[in-house]
Amino acid sequence: MKIYDWHTGPYPARIRIALGEKGLRPQVEFQSVDLWKGEHKTPEFLAKNYSGTLPVLELPNGIFLAECTAITQYLDRLDGKPWLTGQTPLEQGVIHMMNKRAELELLDPISVYFHHATPGLGPQVELYQNAEWGLRQRDKGLRGMSYFNSVLEHQPYVAGDAFSMADITVIGGLIFASLVDVAVPDHCHALRAWHEKVQQRPSVQNWITMSD
Amino acid sequence: MKIYDWHTGPYPARIRIALGEKGLRPQVEFQSVDLWKGEHKTPEFLAKNYSGTLPVLELPNGIFLAECTAITQYLDRLDGKPWLTGQTPLEQGVIHMMNKRAELELLDPISVYFHHATPGLGPQVELYQNAEWGLRQRDKGLRGMSYFNSVLEHQPYVAGDAFSMADITVIGGLIFASLVDVAVPDHCHALRAWHEKVQQRPSVQNWITMSD
Repeated sequence: MKIYDWHTGPYPARIRIALGEKGLRPQVEFQSVDLWKGEHKTPEFLAKNYSGTLPVLELPNGIFLAECTAITQYLDRLDGKPWLTGQTPLEQGVIHMMNKRAELELLDPISVYFHHATPGLGPQVELYQNAEWGLRQRDKGLRGMSYFNSVLEHQPYVAGDAFSMADITVIGGLIFASLVDVAVPDHCHALRAWHEKVQQRPSVQNWITMSD
Repeated sequence: MKIYDWHTGPYPARIRIALGEKGLRPQVEFQSVDLWKGEHKTPEFLAKNYSGTLPVLELPNGIFLAECTAITQYLDRLDGKPWLTGQTPLEQGVIHMMNKRAELELLDPISVYFHHATPGLGPQVELYQNAEWGLRQRDKGLRGMSYFNSVLEHQPYVAGDAFSMADITVIGGLIFASLVDVAVPDHCHALRAWHEKVQQRPSVQNWITMSD
């Protein structure tokens, strides 16, 4: 399998962490797509992923799988022992809900803030910016941190008792927030404690050097 | 099970269609949440779904399941015979990718257009609007229609050979587009033909009256 990604990207981090958790790193070859040069917006790359986002997983049969949730769903089930995306219908439902909520309320808003209310990837790549929208999204992301803090006051992981895809997406949100200097609010003690705990996992420690 | 939704809502339509496809309508009770009165933004409803969106599925054990993808994943697996969300890892990956792409490139942009560049749900509910962003999203949704047209020129359904959750999400996008008078471009013959075909399905014909 081949992963098209960029070594410091917060979305690519989600799949690198999932690969680490599932022990799949040895089966994967990485190919860099330079975000800062806009290589993810070229016609050649858009043919692989219409949305022009990283990461993309290329399978041996030539299929290109995009979208972190879809890639994680695929990778987690390859060995017939899914646990990042849940086993029972209820586990799967709750993990998918919290994963989507982590995108919608934290990771995606911080990404929009970066691309619209900061220089983002630079004027050659950011062809349209809406700063007012970007700033609103930063504030939405901060509210999202408070929300996930309240969740983690009552349970050890984002989707309940076990580490899952939803935790990985919140980690991705905090990676992105750190890159753009959006600090976790002081009152978010449970979120900070959870973050320290999950950062002990080898998959989370090593994601940035995984493609070396 | 109880579904909190609104009978003309494009996102609620996704779960109503999934319920119809899976034959689960008799097991569900509907409770109206009046979007036009902003009932989905009250503290009482936000306690059920932090994101303040419809639909929400309440399970007998008191768990509230939000987000259409998560609800569909749950409902499809209840009988141990999933087909809306796929069986093999690859089927699941491709369906989740195309479902997410249908949200990202069609349904969600049309929704943002409605809420930001039209009167939306009215001044009591739409407390902040960014018209420029909304108009950009309308254009993104139109490009999304052309993309899905190109997909459907080469395969009978959005995620391949079989009807799936991804088709339902594109149907939701076209429901929303119709509500806000965003027409499918004339050149989208394959998308139009697919739409006529899927509208023959009883689940798609009956969704709006399902809660009666």
